Amino acid sequence: MSEIPSAAVLVIGDEILSGRTQDTNSCTIARFLASLGIDLKEVRVVGDVEAEIVAAVNALRARYRYVFTTGGIGPTHDDITADAVAKAFGVDIAIHPEALAMLAERIKDLNEARRRMARIPEGASLIKNSVSAAPGFQIGNVFVMAGVPGIMQAMLEDVAPRLARGTLVHSLTVTAAIGEGTIAAGLAKVQFAFPGVAIGSYPYYRPDGFGVNLVARGRDRGAVEKAAQAIEEVVRDCGAEPSRSA
Amino acid sequence: MSEIPSAAVLVIGDEILSGRTQDTNSCTIARFLASLGIDLKEVRVVGDVEAEIVAAVNALRARYRYVFTTGGIGPTHDDITADAVAKAFGVDIAIHPEALAMLAERIKDLNEARRRMARIPEGASLIKNSVSAAPGFQIGNVFVMAGVPGIMQAMLEDVAPRLARGTLVHSLTVTAAIGEGTIAAGLAKVQFAFPGVAIGSYPYYRPDGFGVNLVARGRDRGAVEKAAQAIEEVVRDCGAEPSRSA
Repeated sequence: MSEIPSAAVLVIGDEILSGRTQDTNSCTIARFLASLGIDLKEVRVVGDVEAEIVAAVNALRARYRYVFTTGGIGPTHDDITADAVAKAFGVDIAIHPEALAMLAERIKDLNEARRRMARIPEGASLIKNSVSAAPGFQIGNVFVMAGVPGIMQAMLEDVAPRLARGTLVHSLTVTAAIGEGTIAAGLAKVQFAFPGVAIGSYPYYRPDGFGVNLVARGRDRGAVEKAAQAIEEVVRDCGAEPSRSA
Repeated sequence: MSEIPSAAVLVIGDEILSGRTQDTNSCTIARFLASLGIDLKEVRVVGDVEAEIVAAVNALRARYRYVFTTGGIGPTHDDITADAVAKAFGVDIAIHPEALAMLAERIKDLNEARRRMARIPEGASLIKNSVSAAPGFQIGNVFVMAGVPGIMQAMLEDVAPRLARGTLVHSLTVTAAIGEGTIAAGLAKVQFAFPGVAIGSYPYYRPDGFGVNLVARGRDRGAVEKAAQAIEEVVRDCGAEPSRSA
């Protein structure tokens, strides 16, 4: 098995920390990375504060193979991500002719604020945005994307071909109307027997009763299948009926 | 103005990083903290990996007045948060008599796995859980809570009286059917004129058209009101009609 690429997400924006906006971008990126076999290891959210963005970008890019940022690349005064990323990399930032051409193609009134969206750190390559023209960019192992979810998703399409892929993670879920505490001992034995499979236990509480989703995840499809079967046995041993989903 | 308490959230769980589960707890905590005038400065998400939890707890508790963790305190083998937090603080962990009594009151079959939920780091105080009995705990400036949203919310009620409060942040939103790039220059002038008010610009794209939400936030209610009025003027100067919401 080749080495599995690792990744981190950095969400940038006061509106997330104030509770005004529920971040959904990190979950979207998590699913996107899972589909490529890339392991998302960490997510951070910081505000629109240059020193915080610089510190987080530098901490994460040193540690993970890829870093994906969202937010702060629009035309207004609070959009400081591009400058902060340039600072993190110690490079200049200037109008990028190709980015300016992308904007000019779609936007009639290319005033100073809108031209600001064409300011790209030196040495970066552009990330196309099929929704609203203003590009994101890649510098080193850092991918800088928009915060608006629809635009961020469009940018991921342009990012995908640039990424190394890992072996896919297979996941099987066994659901049972049983308490976590009832099944915990048996489940621990299954985890012990399948060290290469990560077994997670997620209780749910619904109006029609409680139960637990038992998730087996791993890169060896056969081992995941065997672990799921072992979990089903444990559920039956506890007197409940397992149901399985992918 | 007294010093404003700062805070960080640490979300713990593989299910968030794999994209299986959309985290909502950090947004809930963000709103809870806003209602107390506490500034949420950072959110991190890490997986069910002891070394990662220890490192994140120690980084965040050194930097912020309060740290709130969610996830990993159930009865199964993948629930390692209590042990990791004990390790971060360099203290032992053992069955807490009061926590055990809380569990015994609600749970008939108090098997070994369920008793595990009464293991609490030395020196910690309990956080009551009105939903499912198993408590969270507070150690130093770190509040350790459940990952199930309904349970986490119940724990926040028990946490609230323990927290210092800050001056509340007032927020006014001016909405206009106008492009960000059109209003950016005027908006920057408003930000310059009101340095104590944070002015954020959040574009939206809907089936019925695009526009922008311009948010003025600050602890001086009068300054926030004046900034919102100045933003409305800028919107009108750009030929659009502003509408305001709280």
